[in-house]
Amino acid sequence: MSYLTEDTSAEVVNGRIGAQTDPRLREVMSSLVSHLHAFIKEVELTEAEWDYAIEFLTRTGQMCDDTRQEFILLSDVLGVSMLVDAVNHRLPEGATQSTVFGPFHVKGAPERPMGATISLDGKGELCLFEGRVLDVDGTPIENALVDVWSDNEDGFYDVQQPDIQPPFNNRGVFRTGPDGRYAFRGIKPVSYPIPDDGPVGQMLAALGRHPWRPAHMHFMISAPEHARLITHLFVAGDDYLASDAVFGVKPDLIVGLEPVAEGDAMPPAEQGEAAPVKWRAQYDFRLKKQG
Amino acid sequence: MSYLTEDTSAEVVNGRIGAQTDPRLREVMSSLVSHLHAFIKEVELTEAEWDYAIEFLTRTGQMCDDTRQEFILLSDVLGVSMLVDAVNHRLPEGATQSTVFGPFHVKGAPERPMGATISLDGKGELCLFEGRVLDVDGTPIENALVDVWSDNEDGFYDVQQPDIQPPFNNRGVFRTGPDGRYAFRGIKPVSYPIPDDGPVGQMLAALGRHPWRPAHMHFMISAPEHARLITHLFVAGDDYLASDAVFGVKPDLIVGLEPVAEGDAMPPAEQGEAAPVKWRAQYDFRLKKQG
Ligand SMILES: [Cu+2]
Ligand SMILES: [Fe+3]
Ligand SMILES: [Fe+3]
Repeated sequence: MSYLTEDTSAEVVNGRIGAQTDPRLREVMSSLVSHLHAFIKEVELTEAEWDYAIEFLTRTGQMCDDTRQEFILLSDVLGVSMLVDAVNHRLPEGATQSTVFGPFHVKGAPERPMGATISLDGKGELCLFEGRVLDVDGTPIENALVDVWSDNEDGFYDVQQPDIQPPFNNRGVFRTGPDGRYAFRGIKPVSYPIPDDGPVGQMLAALGRHPWRPAHMHFMISAPEHARLITHLFVAGDDYLASDAVFGVKPDLIVGLEPVAEGDAMPPAEQGEAAPVKWRAQYDFRLKKQG
Repeated sequence: MSYLTEDTSAEVVNGRIGAQTDPRLREVMSSLVSHLHAFIKEVELTEAEWDYAIEFLTRTGQMCDDTRQEFILLSDVLGVSMLVDAVNHRLPEGATQSTVFGPFHVKGAPERPMGATISLDGKGELCLFEGRVLDVDGTPIENALVDVWSDNEDGFYDVQQPDIQPPFNNRGVFRTGPDGRYAFRGIKPVSYPIPDDGPVGQMLAALGRHPWRPAHMHFMISAPEHARLITHLFVAGDDYLASDAVFGVKPDLIVGLEPVAEGDAMPPAEQGEAAPVKWRAQYDFRLKKQG
């Protein structure tokens, strides 16, 4: 018989796992229990702190609903989401780095003609995003789907303001041709705070951290025979590049926006487009092969 | 500028903690982040596993309400509650061991006369619990409050069956006199499963573990100038002593119940008591000094 003691606690708990248990579940849970117990011993967690932790986790769960996922926020601000991204996307030399998916992607955004404008609310300064989707060896990839999304000039995604923003505002899907080129008109992205009116926001405040993310455009790029790439482009010069609340920034993903002069050549936009493009971001994505 | 990488992730996250942060919060959060990141790297947590974890934690939070605390259950079955108990109650030689508090204590149970019956529903075999509350050096403690509670013969606490059991069924508070003696009539405790119809129950099943706790009587003993003792007495011979779902058993807390023969001397009970006592449990508690 083995009873739990301070010295043997993780061993005793893990010793209870049944013989028929899925080996991966056993591996994950044993490691989780070992590290969790090591943490408790290392800090000698007090009973009041344990009470607080129970209450914090409960409030975090109860903050979640169809449009709010507070546990993902918690994972994000503790660097867990980016670490999971890192261990699952060890990319070959030359491939574009991934970063967090974030909670604001929407399935079923409309496929738009190359060069089209995704900003539908007339807010913000227009920015042309253009470049190529390439293999790691530099070969253009045809039929890549480039799914892009961003907040609007006020720092909100359309899904956060369903009564204010038009549906699919600042969203669109673009399909590359044989040259691998993509181009679309979005806005010059603006930095925004992650939702900070819940337990995670309170935790950030207690830790002396701000909730801001540096300005970025989201990209999810899928192409035949290639691994899907989920990433952002960050705007060079943003105040929060070195302190992204969710640790999403990687130096290779920072892109300088160039001002566009009147009369500069621009790819064609959709019919009826009038607003002038003020900025231009140039970036080539390099996808690793599938598998 | 330091960006998060697989190698530096915990360092980068902890490096963000503000200079003005409470030192204990810094200590606890830094250790938590370090162990959490070490776990993720050790098992190379997949994105599907991370998704599952987010969803599991969310369901666990949403299972909680006024009468159900699923995060405490989670802490219990992972041995966390007992480990927190262990690091906070390193007791001197000779002091009675503590164990988990459990979720079923109720404040304000009635103080009853010594020897009284706490079982009010007429179910179960009566058992006399008797003994002394002592200092670690063996001196009887006067005016100790002995707060006791247990499930009924069907394995439920009164608060789990408010429409079925009388209020304060199997609960009572007893005050010791100068001899430090306590005595009360409860039932011979029965083993019961922790609530297993939620996420924690699913986890136990996946790990090949059962949800049962061995039969026990809860005690919370407070006395002037002594540290409060929260513990159980477990019934010798129970099937689940070696596999308590919450790891609460300690060998020193197991007590053998002696059968009571007709005509054996019994301490006086309350007026009108008639049901015969079938069992007797004898245990002396030894409290450490305050502070
Ligand atoms: Cu660890
Ligand atoms: Fe975003
Ligand atoms: Fe109990």
